[in-house]
Amino acid sequence: MRLLVLTPILRREGWTPPPPKCVAPDVEVSYEWLDRGAETVESHYDEYVGILDMIEKGLKAQEEGFDAIVINCFLNPALPGMRELLDIPVIGAGEAALHIASMLGDNFSILDPDPPHRTYSHRVAAAVGLMHKLRSVRYLNLGVKGLSQDFESILNRMIEEALKAIEEDGAHVIVLGCTGMRPYAERLSEKLRDYGVPIVEPLSAAIAMAESIVRLGLSHSRASYPKPADKKRIS
Amino acid sequence: MRLLVLTPILRREGWTPPPPKCVAPDVEVSYEWLDRGAETVESHYDEYVGILDMIEKGLKAQEEGFDAIVINCFLNPALPGMRELLDIPVIGAGEAALHIASMLGDNFSILDPDPPHRTYSHRVAAAVGLMHKLRSVRYLNLGVKGLSQDFESILNRMIEEALKAIEEDGAHVIVLGCTGMRPYAERLSEKLRDYGVPIVEPLSAAIAMAESIVRLGLSHSRASYPKPADKKRIS
Amino acid sequence: MRLLVLTPILRREGWTPPPPKCVAPDVEVSYEWLDRGAETVESHYDEYVGILDMIEKGLKAQEEGFDAIVINCFLNPALPGMRELLDIPVIGAGEAALHIASMLGDNFSILDPDPPHRTYSHRVAAAVGLMHKLRSVRYLNLGVKGLSQDFESILNRMIEEALKAIEEDGAHVIVLGCTGMRPYAERLSEKLRDYGVPIVEPLSAAIAMAESIVRLGLSHSRASYPKPADKKRIS
Amino acid sequence: MRLLVLTPILRREGWTPPPPKCVAPDVEVSYEWLDRGAETVESHYDEYVGILDMIEKGLKAQEEGFDAIVINCFLNPALPGMRELLDIPVIGAGEAALHIASMLGDNFSILDPDPPHRTYSHRVAAAVGLMHKLRSVRYLNLGVKGLSQDFESILNRMIEEALKAIEEDGAHVIVLGCTGMRPYAERLSEKLRDYGVPIVEPLSAAIAMAESIVRLGLSHSRASYPKPADKKRIS
Amino acid sequence: MRLLVLTPILRREGWTPPPPKCVAPDVEVSYEWLDRGAETVESHYDEYVGILDMIEKGLKAQEEGFDAIVINCFLNPALPGMRELLDIPVIGAGEAALHIASMLGDNFSILDPDPPHRTYSHRVAAAVGLMHKLRSVRYLNLGVKGLSQDFESILNRMIEEALKAIEEDGAHVIVLGCTGMRPYAERLSEKLRDYGVPIVEPLSAAIAMAESIVRLGLSHSRASYPKPADKKRIS
Amino acid sequence: MRLLVLTPILRREGWTPPPPKCVAPDVEVSYEWLDRGAETVESHYDEYVGILDMIEKGLKAQEEGFDAIVINCFLNPALPGMRELLDIPVIGAGEAALHIASMLGDNFSILDPDPPHRTYSHRVAAAVGLMHKLRSVRYLNLGVKGLSQDFESILNRMIEEALKAIEEDGAHVIVLGCTGMRPYAERLSEKLRDYGVPIVEPLSAAIAMAESIVRLGLSHSRASYPKPADKKRIS
Repeated sequence: MRLLVLTPILRREGWTPPPPKCVAPDVEVSYEWLDRGAETVESHYDEYVGILDMIEKGLKAQEEGFDAIVINCFLNPALPGMRELLDIPVIGAGEAALHIASMLGDNFSILDPDPPHRTYSHRVAAAVGLMHKLRSVRYLNLGVKGLSQDFESILNRMIEEALKAIEEDGAHVIVLGCTGMRPYAERLSEKLRDYGVPIVEPLSAAIAMAESIVRLGLSHSRASYPKPADKKRIS
Repeated sequence: MRLLVLTPILRREGWTPPPPKCVAPDVEVSYEWLDRGAETVESHYDEYVGILDMIEKGLKAQEEGFDAIVINCFLNPALPGMRELLDIPVIGAGEAALHIASMLGDNFSILDPDPPHRTYSHRVAAAVGLMHKLRSVRYLNLGVKGLSQDFESILNRMIEEALKAIEEDGAHVIVLGCTGMRPYAERLSEKLRDYGVPIVEPLSAAIAMAESIVRLGLSHSRASYPKPADKKRIS
Repeated sequence: MRLLVLTPILRREGWTPPPPKCVAPDVEVSYEWLDRGAETVESHYDEYVGILDMIEKGLKAQEEGFDAIVINCFLNPALPGMRELLDIPVIGAGEAALHIASMLGDNFSILDPDPPHRTYSHRVAAAVGLMHKLRSVRYLNLGVKGLSQDFESILNRMIEEALKAIEEDGAHVIVLGCTGMRPYAERLSEKLRDYGVPIVEPLSAAIAMAESIVRLGLSHSRASYPKPADKKRIS
Repeated sequence: MRLLVLTPILRREGWTPPPPKCVAPDVEVSYEWLDRGAETVESHYDEYVGILDMIEKGLKAQEEGFDAIVINCFLNPALPGMRELLDIPVIGAGEAALHIASMLGDNFSILDPDPPHRTYSHRVAAAVGLMHKLRSVRYLNLGVKGLSQDFESILNRMIEEALKAIEEDGAHVIVLGCTGMRPYAERLSEKLRDYGVPIVEPLSAAIAMAESIVRLGLSHSRASYPKPADKKRIS
Repeated sequence: MRLLVLTPILRREGWTPPPPKCVAPDVEVSYEWLDRGAETVESHYDEYVGILDMIEKGLKAQEEGFDAIVINCFLNPALPGMRELLDIPVIGAGEAALHIASMLGDNFSILDPDPPHRTYSHRVAAAVGLMHKLRSVRYLNLGVKGLSQDFESILNRMIEEALKAIEEDGAHVIVLGCTGMRPYAERLSEKLRDYGVPIVEPLSAAIAMAESIVRLGLSHSRASYPKPADKKRIS
Repeated sequence: MRLLVLTPILRREGWTPPPPKCVAPDVEVSYEWLDRGAETVESHYDEYVGILDMIEKGLKAQEEGFDAIVINCFLNPALPGMRELLDIPVIGAGEAALHIASMLGDNFSILDPDPPHRTYSHRVAAAVGLMHKLRSVRYLNLGVKGLSQDFESILNRMIEEALKAIEEDGAHVIVLGCTGMRPYAERLSEKLRDYGVPIVEPLSAAIAMAESIVRLGLSHSRASYPKPADKKRIS
C-alpha cells in the first residue's frame, strides 16, 4: 500500500521528514509539498493560495497509483474539493485526530499553537461534527513558526497547558492541534503517562486512518462529494 | 452607500442584472464577476477555481471605496477568506437568507435546484449554525443551468415542491437555495400568498443585510477572522 | 418607510429619544410607550402587565400605516402574540441583535445589566435558537435602573466585563443585553476597537433588521403565527 | 395536600370536572377557571387575555393554603410569571407530560388537536428542552372545540393517528397534546395496549408531578424565577 | 401501593434505612439488597457484578406484587435490562433526579462524591438526554465510602461546592450525585434556603416519581424495552 | 500484532470464521466466544447474561499478550466495563463502524436486522455521540437468526432497504447494523457501486480501527474509564 502525505505548504528544500512509526510493514509512505501555496497555513487565505495546487498534486498522486492521500494539516485544507475530484481516500489530519480521540474517551481538549489562529480549533471540531465532545481549547501562544524553536521550553508550555486541560477543564483525551507539534508528541505522552490521558498526534492519526480505510476497500461517499461536471473553468 | 454584488462565476458579457428592489434611495449597487473562475458554482472545486480572484476583486472593491460586498451565491464561496483580508463587511447570500428566514418563522425548508449538488443545502445550514431550523430540503432536479430555461415549467416545479415542503414537511418559511432562482421569486411568492409562508430570495436578503450592517457601523469580528500575517506566498 | 419603536414600559413624560443613526434617508422612526404596563421590564410579570397594551398599540400602529414595529426590549416581550395579530413585521430587539451577532462572528457573549434578571440572557438565546453560539454571559450587577446613573463608572464596568468576555471567555462578538445600554454603545465600541470585536446594540440592530425586512417585502410566517380565531374573550 | 387545577379559560357554568384518579388518598383537588380570559387557548393572544387573571388566581390560591397549582393546558400559559410571583410549586400540563414521557421511553410523539395551532406542539417541546426526544407530531385537524363533539369518531381519529405515529414514525410513547383530550385517554390506552406504547394524558401527568414535588418539599428555583421587585405597574 | 427500593450493592446486615418522608399514606416502601454484587457501585464493573441478581430480585418483587421498583443508585445500574424483563415500572434514582431538576429550573449542577468515578455524572446526564441542562459538575473528592464518615466536615464540603456551583457556575438547581448523600440533604437544603436554589436528593426523587407513574397507570414503553425472546442462555 | 475478536455469544462448535481481509500482513486475528452468555445478543438482558464472561475472556486475552480486543457485536456489549479493567484497547464494532462512516460522508443510515431489537440502532448512535449524523434506520424485519438463512432473498431485502435509504432518506453512507450481516457485505457493495455510497461492515471496521489504535501506541483514557478499586465483590 502506498500513502502520500501531502503537506499544504511550500516545499522546504533539504528537509526530510522522519519515517512514521505507525504503519504496517507493507505500507510505503511518501511525502509531497506545494509549489504554489503559503509558507505555513494559519488562515483561510493561506489555504486558498495553495488550494489548486493541492488538487493538482492529488490528481497526480492518484495517477501514479497511490492508494490514499493524507492532508498534513490540522485544518484539513482543500479536503472537500479533493474528495470531489479523487476516487482514492483523502484523509485530513484534524478530522482523523478528532475521530480517533472520540473513540478513546468521553471528551477531548485541543492544544492550539495559536495565536494567531485562535478560532480554528473550534471550527475544525464543528466542521467534523464533534463539537459536543470538545471540552476546551488550550492556547500555547506560539504560532506555527514558534513551534520549530526552543524544544524544551515549548515542551514545557505544552505540558503546562495539557495539565490545565486535564485538571481544570476535565479533559479525558488531549489532541495536538497542529501537525507541526509532532516532534513533541512522544515526550509529552511520556510526561503524562501517569494521568492515563492519551495524546493524539494528528498526522499519525491520519496515516493510520488512511491505512484502515484502504484496507477496508472504502472511500468517501459520492453522495457527499459528487464528481464536478465538465464545464468552462479558467484558473 | 455603495454595495458590490460579487458573483463568483465567470463574467457573462452582454448581460445586465435587473436593478434590485430592496435597497434604500441612498444605496448604489454595482455588479462584478470573475475573470478566473468557473461558469457556474456547483461544487467545492468550482469555488476553488475562482477563490483567489474573489479575494482580488474584494480587495479592489475595498480600495475603490465600496462599503460592503455581497457574495452572490447561496454556497457562500470564499466567505471566510474574504473576511480575513477585508475590513468592510462581506455578506454571503446563503448565510443572509437563512438568518432572515430564522427571524420570520419557527423553521424553514430550502428549495434546491439540484442535482448535482444534492449535499450543499444541508452543508450551508450547518456552516451557518442553523441546521436545527432546517425542516427539509426539496430538490427541483434541474441543476443551475436548467434554471435559465423554460420559465413557466420551472416555476411550476418550484410551486409543486414548495407546496410539498409546506403541506408534507411542515415548512414555515421557504428559502430559495440558489441566487439563480431570483427571477422566479416574485411569481412564486404571489402563488403562495394564501399560505402565509414567506419566500426568501437569497441575493435580495444579502443585499438588505449588507445595507443594515453598514448602517449599523459594524463589520465581521477580527477574533473570528484574524488578518493573515505577512509571509511568503506563491500563487 | 415608517417604523414604530414600541417601548414596553410606561410612558416617561418629557423625554425624547435621540434620533437613530442607523436608518436610510427615506425611513421615519416614531416612538411609542405604554399606558398600562410596568416602569421597567425585568421579569415575566413586568411583561404580562403591559402585554395587552402592547397588542393594542401594535394594532393602532398598523391601522395608522406603519410599515413595521420594533419592540424596544432585549427580552422581546409580547413578540409571538403581536405577530399573531399583526400583518406588518414585528421585530424584537434581542432577537435581531443575536441574529446580527451570529452573522459577524463564530460566537457572542452578552453583557447583562443584571441582577435581578440573571436568567434572561440565556433564555433569550434559547428562545431565538442561537444558544449554541452563546459563549458566555457577563453580568454588570446594575439592574435596568442603575443603567441611567453615573455614566463613566458604568461605562468602565462595561469595558471591564467586555474585556473579560473577550480575554477569558473567548467572545468574538459582544451583544449589549438591554436596550437601556444604548447610550454607552458608541463609547464602548471606541474603547474596544483595537480588539476587532464588534459591539451589537440591540435597538439599532432591530431598527436595521425591520427596515431590511420591509424592503424585502417580507413579514412573519402565518404558519408560525396563525391569526387567532374569533371567540369570546373578556379582558 | 391540597392542589388547585387552574384552567386558563373562562369559567363554564354548570360543569363539574370528573374527580382525578391519579392522586393519593390524602390529596384534595380543587378546580378554578378564569373570570377574564378566552373561551379556549389556541394562540398566544388567548394566553395574553387571561394572563393577569392567572396570576391573581394563583396568588389567591397560595393565600388560601393550596400546596401547589397545576396549569390545565398543554401550552403551559403564564407558567414563568406565576413561578416568579408564587412560592408554591406551579406545574404546567405540557411540561409535566413531556417529562413523564421522557422517562418511559426513548422518544415520544404528540397527538395535536390542531388546526389551528399547528405550531405549538413543537414549541412546547422546545420550551421545556425536550425537542430531541420529539419523534413526530400527528395532527387530528379538529381544533379544541371539535374535541367536545362526536366521541366515537374523534376516538377513531386519535387511534388512527396514534397508530401512524407508532408504525410510520417509530413513536415509543404517545403524548396527548391537549388537556381537552382527557375523556379519550382511557379508551385510547385500551385500544393500544397490545403495542406496549404508553399514552400520557397531560392533566393527570401534571397532577401527579405536582403531588410528587410537594411531597419532596421542593419548589421552583428562585435563580430561574426571581421574585419581581416592587415598582410602578399600571394594569 | 407497594414500592421496592432495590439497592444494587451487597446487603449490609444489621442496618435499617430511615423511613422515607416523601410518600403518601397509602404507600408502603420495602428495601432489598443484593446477594451477589459489589460492596459499592463506583464503576461499570461494579454494576456488572450484581447485574443478574438485580434482574432476579426484580422478577421476584414483581411476582410478590410490588407495584414498582426504585433502583437506589444515581448511576441507574441495570435499568434498561430490568425494564425489558419486568412489566411494573422501574425507576432509576439518577434519571428521576435529573427530570425533577429539569422541571424546577433552567439548569442544574451535580454534586459528585468522586473521585474515583469522575466521569459518571456527565454520562448519566447524557444517558437520560438532559446534558444540555447540565451547568457543571462539582466534585467532593470523597468517594462513596468517604460519605459515611465525619458528618459535619462532609456537610461543609458539600455546602462549599454547592455555593461554588451557584455563584461561580450559575447553577439554578443542585442535584446530589449519589444516593449515599441522602443523610446530608436536609441540612444542606436548610443552609442554602436563602439562595432559593432547590436541592434534589435522588432516592427521594425516584420514590416520588415511581409513586406518580404507578398512580397514572403507566409503565415503560415496550417499543423502547422489548421483552427478550426465549433462547438458550447460560449464566 | 495479535488481535482477539471476542464474540459476545455462546461458542458455536465446529464453526470457523472466514479470515478477515482487512488486516496488514503482520496482524494475526484470533477468535473467542463465551462459555456463559446467550445464543444471540438482541437485548440488554442477553448482554447481561454474558457480561462477566466477557470481562474474564478479556483479562485472559490481555495476559496472553493480545494487543487489542474487538467486540464482535454492533451493540458494543460490555464495552465500558472491559475498558475499565483492561489496559489494551477494546474496540466495539458499532462504535468503530459509525466513526468510520462519519469520516466518509455527511451522514449515514443503518440497516437494522430487526425486529425484535427495533430501538438499538438509535441507541448505539446516541451512545457514541453521532446521533446528529444518523439520517435514518431501515429495518429488514429478520432478527439476528433470520440472517443466517436464505442468502439471496436476504441480500435482496438488504438491497431494497439500502436503496430506500439512499433515494428516499438521502443516506450518504450505509452502515450494516449487525456483525451477522458480514457475509452479505461484499455482494451488497458490488450492487450499490454505481451509487457511490460506501457500505460499512462493522466487524471489519472494528478490526481495522483496533489495528490503527495499536499502531498509534494508544489506548482508552483512564479519565473516562478509571480502573475499579479493590473491594468486596461476590458474583
